[in-house]
Amino acid sequence: MLMTEFTIDDRNRIRRKPDRGRFERDVIYPIIDEALICHVGFVEDGQPFVIPTLHARLDDSLILHGARASRMLKHIQAGHPVCATFTLVDGLVLARSVFNHSMNYRSAVVFGRGRLIEADDEKMHALEALTEHIARGRWAEARQPTIKEMNATTVVGITIEQASAKMRTGPPGDDEADYALPIWAGVLPLGEQAGAPLPDPRLREGIPVPDSVRGFSRTP
Amino acid sequence: MLMTEFTIDDRNRIRRKPDRGRFERDVIYPIIDEALICHVGFVEDGQPFVIPTLHARLDDSLILHGARASRMLKHIQAGHPVCATFTLVDGLVLARSVFNHSMNYRSAVVFGRGRLIEADDEKMHALEALTEHIARGRWAEARQPTIKEMNATTVVGITIEQASAKMRTGPPGDDEADYALPIWAGVLPLGEQAGAPLPDPRLREGIPVPDSVRGFSRTP
Repeated sequence: MLMTEFTIDDRNRIRRKPDRGRFERDVIYPIIDEALICHVGFVEDGQPFVIPTLHARLDDSLILHGARASRMLKHIQAGHPVCATFTLVDGLVLARSVFNHSMNYRSAVVFGRGRLIEADDEKMHALEALTEHIARGRWAEARQPTIKEMNATTVVGITIEQASAKMRTGPPGDDEADYALPIWAGVLPLGEQAGAPLPDPRLREGIPVPDSVRGFSRTP
Repeated sequence: MLMTEFTIDDRNRIRRKPDRGRFERDVIYPIIDEALICHVGFVEDGQPFVIPTLHARLDDSLILHGARASRMLKHIQAGHPVCATFTLVDGLVLARSVFNHSMNYRSAVVFGRGRLIEADDEKMHALEALTEHIARGRWAEARQPTIKEMNATTVVGITIEQASAKMRTGPPGDDEADYALPIWAGVLPLGEQAGAPLPDPRLREGIPVPDSVRGFSRTP
């Protein structure tokens, strides 16, 4: 990667609480990689649409996939401007005053334009990245895509032209006078947790839970 | 609520896997209420923006708030079309084939237009809903907003004109021939979990963790 930081203009400038804004790739990309899904925004006839979808990142490209018929993918592969947003909620910030309540979070907003990924090797590499993004190691465990399955799947790459991250950490910030109030304040940590794996009712006997599931973690 | 189901047209029709689509308020609204945050999409000069933000729902209105300077809120209060999306990730669906991997989820996509909420009583009621959405009971525990704080906060209401929900539950669906493969398949449940509350370093002694925090649950 040639540049470590994205250029800043009106599109990605952080106007509210600019001290929470970051523009370095090495801050933004770990947020993208840790988020399981993103929310993709696109425009049709002036109407915004926001669709949740699985993603992966390969260098400066965001990879999305789906069925051929997908409205979102048709729109993206046509090269229209796209915004994709990644949000990790880390906790509730409970202040003494209602006004100073907040959230601890890390979010990234990415701007770019997409293209269809058609070449077989590039498409296979992108599908591997999507599978590995869900659960590391799963690509090697599962049955690989057939030509027919490849043809039924649309894969797009969105070149990340510009991006920003925004985050908050730490305890609440109350007005000085409010610290004397007899009101509990603090942070309630939140995070995505995995439960015990549920084997498929049709799972053959004697197949152990694989590494990709036992070792599941969202932290890259 | 006069109508139990939203009208369906090109904007909210579920094209991919229509059997997963739902249009009833009593299916859509619980998803909105359980989601801690939403992703709001709006358009400026043809460019889509997707911003994560806290929300609340009051009947058929979505409530958002923030600082006066917020680009998103200025745009919404001007009455431009808005899309807000709510996503609950319930699990990874690990199939025997890469192709049949999926996610269990519940999502809602809402379309509407916003207006500024200005009247003091309506604004206070909306702020109460936002606070209660974060943690039930918190409004009564915390110091209420002052006039100055109210004036520093913009609150908008978005009338939900149209919406849809989409969801997937259950085990993977593999191709019949793949069930014989010696590959583990099943669901890894995922969900947002709260950790132990972290008291503010400046918390006065002798203040117990309140009900809103001890009883925290996203299920409405």
